[in-house]
Amino acid sequence: MNIQPKIRVGVLGATGAVGQRFVQMLQGHPWFELSVLCASQRNAGRRYADACNWLLRGDMPAHLHDVILQEMAPGLDCRVVFSALPSGPARAIEAELAAAGYVVCSNASAYRYEPDVPLLIPEVNPGHLGLIDLQRDRRDWRGFITTNPNCSTTHLVSALHPLHEAFGVEKVFAVTMQAVSGAGYTGVTSMDIIDNVVPFIGSEEEKMERREPQKLLGRFDGQAVQMADFVVSAHCNRVPVRNGHLAAISVAFARRPSLEDVHRAWAEYDPLPQRMGLPSAPQQAILYREETDRPQPRMDRLAGSVPGMTTVVGRLREDPLLHVKFLALGHNTIRGAAGGSLLNAELLAAKGYLDSREEAAGDRTPVAAGALDAVR
Amino acid sequence: MNIQPKIRVGVLGATGAVGQRFVQMLQGHPWFELSVLCASQRNAGRRYADACNWLLRGDMPAHLHDVILQEMAPGLDCRVVFSALPSGPARAIEAELAAAGYVVCSNASAYRYEPDVPLLIPEVNPGHLGLIDLQRDRRDWRGFITTNPNCSTTHLVSALHPLHEAFGVEKVFAVTMQAVSGAGYTGVTSMDIIDNVVPFIGSEEEKMERREPQKLLGRFDGQAVQMADFVVSAHCNRVPVRNGHLAAISVAFARRPSLEDVHRAWAEYDPLPQRMGLPSAPQQAILYREETDRPQPRMDRLAGSVPGMTTVVGRLREDPLLHVKFLALGHNTIRGAAGGSLLNAELLAAKGYLDSREEAAGDRTPVAAGALDAVR
Amino acid sequence: MNIQPKIRVGVLGATGAVGQRFVQMLQGHPWFELSVLCASQRNAGRRYADACNWLLRGDMPAHLHDVILQEMAPGLDCRVVFSALPSGPARAIEAELAAAGYVVCSNASAYRYEPDVPLLIPEVNPGHLGLIDLQRDRRDWRGFITTNPNCSTTHLVSALHPLHEAFGVEKVFAVTMQAVSGAGYTGVTSMDIIDNVVPFIGSEEEKMERREPQKLLGRFDGQAVQMADFVVSAHCNRVPVRNGHLAAISVAFARRPSLEDVHRAWAEYDPLPQRMGLPSAPQQAILYREETDRPQPRMDRLAGSVPGMTTVVGRLREDPLLHVKFLALGHNTIRGAAGGSLLNAELLAAKGYLDSREEAAGDRTPVAAGALDAVR
Amino acid sequence: MNIQPKIRVGVLGATGAVGQRFVQMLQGHPWFELSVLCASQRNAGRRYADACNWLLRGDMPAHLHDVILQEMAPGLDCRVVFSALPSGPARAIEAELAAAGYVVCSNASAYRYEPDVPLLIPEVNPGHLGLIDLQRDRRDWRGFITTNPNCSTTHLVSALHPLHEAFGVEKVFAVTMQAVSGAGYTGVTSMDIIDNVVPFIGSEEEKMERREPQKLLGRFDGQAVQMADFVVSAHCNRVPVRNGHLAAISVAFARRPSLEDVHRAWAEYDPLPQRMGLPSAPQQAILYREETDRPQPRMDRLAGSVPGMTTVVGRLREDPLLHVKFLALGHNTIRGAAGGSLLNAELLAAKGYLDSREEAAGDRTPVAAGALDAVR
Repeated sequence: MNIQPKIRVGVLGATGAVGQRFVQMLQGHPWFELSVLCASQRNAGRRYADACNWLLRGDMPAHLHDVILQEMAPGLDCRVVFSALPSGPARAIEAELAAAGYVVCSNASAYRYEPDVPLLIPEVNPGHLGLIDLQRDRRDWRGFITTNPNCSTTHLVSALHPLHEAFGVEKVFAVTMQAVSGAGYTGVTSMDIIDNVVPFIGSEEEKMERREPQKLLGRFDGQAVQMADFVVSAHCNRVPVRNGHLAAISVAFARRPSLEDVHRAWAEYDPLPQRMGLPSAPQQAILYREETDRPQPRMDRLAGSVPGMTTVVGRLREDPLLHVKFLALGHNTIRGAAGGSLLNAELLAAKGYLDSREEAAGDRTPVAAGALDAVR
Repeated sequence: MNIQPKIRVGVLGATGAVGQRFVQMLQGHPWFELSVLCASQRNAGRRYADACNWLLRGDMPAHLHDVILQEMAPGLDCRVVFSALPSGPARAIEAELAAAGYVVCSNASAYRYEPDVPLLIPEVNPGHLGLIDLQRDRRDWRGFITTNPNCSTTHLVSALHPLHEAFGVEKVFAVTMQAVSGAGYTGVTSMDIIDNVVPFIGSEEEKMERREPQKLLGRFDGQAVQMADFVVSAHCNRVPVRNGHLAAISVAFARRPSLEDVHRAWAEYDPLPQRMGLPSAPQQAILYREETDRPQPRMDRLAGSVPGMTTVVGRLREDPLLHVKFLALGHNTIRGAAGGSLLNAELLAAKGYLDSREEAAGDRTPVAAGALDAVR
Repeated sequence: MNIQPKIRVGVLGATGAVGQRFVQMLQGHPWFELSVLCASQRNAGRRYADACNWLLRGDMPAHLHDVILQEMAPGLDCRVVFSALPSGPARAIEAELAAAGYVVCSNASAYRYEPDVPLLIPEVNPGHLGLIDLQRDRRDWRGFITTNPNCSTTHLVSALHPLHEAFGVEKVFAVTMQAVSGAGYTGVTSMDIIDNVVPFIGSEEEKMERREPQKLLGRFDGQAVQMADFVVSAHCNRVPVRNGHLAAISVAFARRPSLEDVHRAWAEYDPLPQRMGLPSAPQQAILYREETDRPQPRMDRLAGSVPGMTTVVGRLREDPLLHVKFLALGHNTIRGAAGGSLLNAELLAAKGYLDSREEAAGDRTPVAAGALDAVR
Repeated sequence: MNIQPKIRVGVLGATGAVGQRFVQMLQGHPWFELSVLCASQRNAGRRYADACNWLLRGDMPAHLHDVILQEMAPGLDCRVVFSALPSGPARAIEAELAAAGYVVCSNASAYRYEPDVPLLIPEVNPGHLGLIDLQRDRRDWRGFITTNPNCSTTHLVSALHPLHEAFGVEKVFAVTMQAVSGAGYTGVTSMDIIDNVVPFIGSEEEKMERREPQKLLGRFDGQAVQMADFVVSAHCNRVPVRNGHLAAISVAFARRPSLEDVHRAWAEYDPLPQRMGLPSAPQQAILYREETDRPQPRMDRLAGSVPGMTTVVGRLREDPLLHVKFLALGHNTIRGAAGGSLLNAELLAAKGYLDSREEAAGDRTPVAAGALDAVR
């Protein structure tokens, strides 16, 4: 048996809500070893247990209590950094780290819309990894950046992907009912949301309408991603739900499918991460619930063999205006954020993108190869 | 000065949530005097204070505590009965009372879709009152029934009406986020809705898509209502909000308006009830809020000069698929239920439909005429 | 290796909220095999999947979908019945089954206050099992009934038990903030609890003040349980929380302990079920959280090695009126209901009370003996 | 008729949640004219409509949109300043303004515990106004400061006051369930409170146990307030409620009253502000509700003739440990904050404390005397 060391990884912004999800999901990971926790200058140098108000159910992993938070700059002893940074600081920090040779798997929006940066859902567009070489060439970076989409876009596009493959999406109407955790720990005050809905989320509709779905469902032609050609209308709302973004979706296609056709497309969906057996890929990327009143956030947000990584759909029916309508729901801080980045990193590992000798922090981190043999 | 006695009215289903709203809104009404409270057989004969668990803020009016609940059958000492009944029992009871000469202003759906029964929003289709004569002739009733639409349809159609007049509605996409009170006091258990959204409300989408908007915006040609010709796609959801239904709406028209055109249509809207000064008609039937994150249920459901009777709209913007999109919000148990029926009754009074000598309960209830002179 | 068959068990009231918890907790149980599901006459004869609206996260176990619900009367093919019945029907049904030879582990309050029926928390008063022989003698029953306490009492008494042993409880002040699930699926309407607290729960304060804690902490003298002698003042409130009852508690003792004494009593607590290794006994019966703002229902209700079976305490401090004050929290439908009854049954099994040849349904259910050897 | 000009008043911290309540309650006030709005340096110089995110139902008063926010320093054109400042900045600013001649009616805790500063509830301890002369002498201030208590203390002490007068309070047990607005607009994030209770509020228990009730119910002997001699044990909790603090309270007295005695003490309570007819004094300072499940925050927080100014009590019953137990509820940002300060100012006006020629801002603000004649 060929035992390979695990790949060392770090988390940028480890004290925040998404950072904590990264930390939680990396516990006991078969390929990755969390060795670096980074925070803003204010917190760098402090113990993780002192600087971090742990928000997730269950306790902060005990062995991390005494880890000293590091500054977000080259010199980190890891190969991959997961970025849970806000878009503002992400811009400079992620570039600096990528230039220095780190593989940055970012949940931030800072680089999502750059033509040479993959915006990835491993089930949807693994072929976009081809952008990485272009990115490194163009920018003269030793490492690179990959990103995952916005939490609402993720589940919308995940649900659409097999339908797009089969019937060609042309028009999408989507109204979201989004959980408060999507705005971060302090993003929505209780005064605003008890007994209320807030029908506005800054720049969310722009992301869902124009910036992300067309890139995600676009095709990489060897030089660039050719945007998919369809139109999205989005209304985004915040509801008094802790976790789980729900969307009411209507779609028209190039070729009108029957409801049975749509059911079959979802049922037969067997994308790459599931076939490869990536550790964070749920057995079912898309789960259809038969009940008349599902999916529901509280009941379905943790569905699936890897809790929070499955997109749950339901209530498929004919749409009077377009072709079909249905609901899609998914966990916004797992698949829609930390889990999305993590699965991206697993895809990179499985595809050999982490084998490179372009080590960021010297050669102390051996590359896990054998550990990944099974999935290749 | 010509002092006329008030018109005596009763409430069917007075102990329920909508029944209580009728009772509350009839306190101190300038034209109507609440003289009869009716309940199901189980409660008939009991004191109102004993049979009714008062749900509204503020107390049950003290002078009603000792009123004895009556059975819902002819013999009631009033001219108008407001029906807060469920659709099932409403079918037989409303017909029996209408046949006996009562004017039934019903919130129930039982008769909404009958071709000879007006489905009324006084601002939208007062001309449909012409159906009343047909109804009485055809059914050989001494009284008649009018109905108000479903709570979600009410605010959707109210917001659309001036736009339909100006530009001709062709396609409507509407996703509702509806308050729990819409299902009645026991309709939604707390177990289902805390930290959750339930994306299904029985037969609500059918009402919004096919049964109500086209009739409401249709034109009475002297013989029948010619249904308006447009298509609606609706997704209806229950959210953890007590009162106030919010809808995300996109619309396409026969003639594409600019955003400015739509603003103007709403701003200049001056429908009949406002011109007539009906007591429950708010000064503004439609109120546009300029903030980027409004309307919100908790903040706006009681907007307007008659709290809960105004439809509040906001966030008007271009729609990538249709023409424009916006939000509409309104109070579901006031304008969307009891207040809707009450305004219908006020319109009937102002139009002379309550003057008739076809008295239900003998001639003891003189007709208020002078009290209404001002509005005619 | 001596493989013994599992003990066959059934659930009374299997379609309700607590019944579903029993079903859920019995999946994969090492000693018990769920072989019988019972429901009220209305549902008897139907498939479980048809009659039961599954309320718990995760799906109804697939192998139970086609199980036919049975009537609650002798003839059930099992040794133990778990009762999730309301108190009213429980009175006759549980007696009939106990008389017929079944071991009834009941969550209902019907028999809790009978002097010859054990009111059991296995950590607290396992010695009360001695009542069983008296019960069978006195009532001439072939089986018997044991009960678990009210959901709020359970966690109050669990937290007090080691303190009572060490210092002698004399006065208790307890104010509960209870989850809506304590009232059952339809027990609290959303209209009552959104943005609200309801400061009344029928007969809850009586149970906490006079009926349960003194019996639970009483001593069985071979003939009867001698009630413990202390006074409780309780205020019970319903709050907008789905699961988890929280209580603010102040206590005075016969011997005033220091805070350190109390901490030590909890830390060193090692009661019987933990020492015996009962399958549903959590490693820690009582868990103290050090944070200044814990326990919290959402964060701590599923604490412990067997989720929902641990009582979580926190914020221990001096009390200006009595001696100490603290918070206690526990899951109300797990340890406070189904899990409490299940642990009672495990104690019965481990103590040999299920070995008897007094079989209810003939001799088809062999007794598990070897499977329990380890814990004896 | 002797028309007197109104007394000019200002608000410190006018953009915050409590500041907005001051602004709202001062609209149309019969004695006071809001002429000055102050904010922190960051916002000083901006239009009120630009700097203030209006949080209250209903709109910001239109005539205030263009008011320019001023710095909080002498030079303000008003006689009274209402302080909605946090305790930190309040310390220096309030002293500077009082020294300069302003009457500061403060909701901040900065000066509440100073021996020479009145901590006032006009119904409870109007005699403490005698401290004002001592304060001015001792500090050599031209103006002075009065304060109102913490929002939870206010309603506890209000409910206790007539009982203390009649029976002598000796021991109090109080567990609060407090609304999120008590922590200010951003004080409680939605992530913390959805489906949860947070059983800790910083320094709240100290205020309720030791710092405020004994001063409020103490007696001014001409030189100092002699603290009342009783012991309070408090547990303070945050619940998912927007407005309205509820407390479960048990009390023992020097002379044990019957329940009837307590009812009578509340019913016959007729304190000074009600006898004087102060504009913001509700007809009933204390309202007892007879229902078994009241008071409830959503139903009762706006009770009374001046919404939010009445303390609502209910569920009076014998207490097994002390003498009686009951619930008390009140609005935390109205009577418990802005409304408390406003009523203090009305008492000052009615008692002649605003007549002084010690004008802060020159002599431009004539003193309202005749306007107050009726209440003297």
